Amino acid sequence: MGRPFVFINAAMSADGKISTVERRQVRISGARDLERVDALRAGSDAVLVGIGTVLADDPSLTVKSERLRAERRKAGKDENPIRVVVDSRARTPLNAEILNKGVGGRLVAVSKRAPMERVKALEQKADVVICGESKVDLRKLLSILYDDYGVRRLMVEGGATLNWSLLSQRLVDELYVFVGNMIIGGANAPTLVDGEGFVDNFLKLELLSVERLDDGVLLKWRVCSRS
Amino acid sequence: MGRPFVFINAAMSADGKISTVERRQVRISGARDLERVDALRAGSDAVLVGIGTVLADDPSLTVKSERLRAERRKAGKDENPIRVVVDSRARTPLNAEILNKGVGGRLVAVSKRAPMERVKALEQKADVVICGESKVDLRKLLSILYDDYGVRRLMVEGGATLNWSLLSQRLVDELYVFVGNMIIGGANAPTLVDGEGFVDNFLKLELLSVERLDDGVLLKWRVCSRS
Repeated sequence: MGRPFVFINAAMSADGKISTVERRQVRISGARDLERVDALRAGSDAVLVGIGTVLADDPSLTVKSERLRAERRKAGKDENPIRVVVDSRARTPLNAEILNKGVGGRLVAVSKRAPMERVKALEQKADVVICGESKVDLRKLLSILYDDYGVRRLMVEGGATLNWSLLSQRLVDELYVFVGNMIIGGANAPTLVDGEGFVDNFLKLELLSVERLDDGVLLKWRVCSRS
Repeated sequence: MGRPFVFINAAMSADGKISTVERRQVRISGARDLERVDALRAGSDAVLVGIGTVLADDPSLTVKSERLRAERRKAGKDENPIRVVVDSRARTPLNAEILNKGVGGRLVAVSKRAPMERVKALEQKADVVICGESKVDLRKLLSILYDDYGVRRLMVEGGATLNWSLLSQRLVDELYVFVGNMIIGGANAPTLVDGEGFVDNFLKLELLSVERLDDGVLLKWRVCSRS
């Protein structure tokens, strides 16, 4: 079963948080990191985001740079990569930015548990794929993206729960983390990877590169196959 | 009111965790990082640790290198820095490694809420200082360490709650974090800085250095004064 190359890109504080205990979005990245993220997005066939992030931050996940959008058009692509929401219960609001802003394909992946009237409503704005019983079957979703949408390069843009689901199922190839120059703190603040957590057999990484960027550090990791 | 130079040293996973959801200790550091930590400890006048870490890990916090211990002796010091436990309710077990292993001063800082029979018991093994009403007053403790124990350089060795208490009270000068090549995950796993967390006015850091070490990265940050 084929799947795309999958990478997570995220920004966290020096103590591993991606937002506050109140789930309020924090600007962790500097200008150069935001440019880097925009270029990564423009270079991807699709971007994947969890419903938690859609509800908390309402991101559009569009390509911001006019130059990069023009390059995509010139290459015969839509201005934006396909935007995909992992949304087991079909809770994506119809007025969400991701469903309304910018051109390009949209896909909402739901489970069989999703209320049919919500599915019908979302189908006015996006493709809807039902995969998985009570939670979206991510492995299957990746194969659908690969086979039916031609996605070869998939960027994951959070949040903590989706990162955990993908990493714990060994569906991620690389992980790019910008570490910002701040402490957010909080036992209940979302971290880069939440979910249940490993109790042993931690997921091993290999450090690909380290680079100072803005006032922080960009770490690139490769996910090792399970030993 | 004088206080020592205070630095936190810690190792965290690539996703900001310092142990698992079950609070099980994880070996995040490699051999070179452990040597670095030992040298930091040997170069400090005292090391500070929270009761949570004592109960979970039972560390001795002794200097491991025979050479470094000999150097301390030659300089007229005890082999180990003064080991200090922040323990508001005097819960440090009498058989804890930190109270029994290795030579050197020991101090348990408790609050007025600590049961007197526990204080009496601990006094057989360590100095006990009572400061703070229901929680240890860290600012006062630092001034006691400075004035009465001559501590000029204090190393903080965790955990997440003590780190939060010190950082949120702006009592930390520098923060050294080894980022290990693994994902631990877990919404409930202890992170580098837990506690309540900032909701705004995040603590700003300045990046002092970035260095590859073992299979991870060592980040050194300076804590900025509040802007």
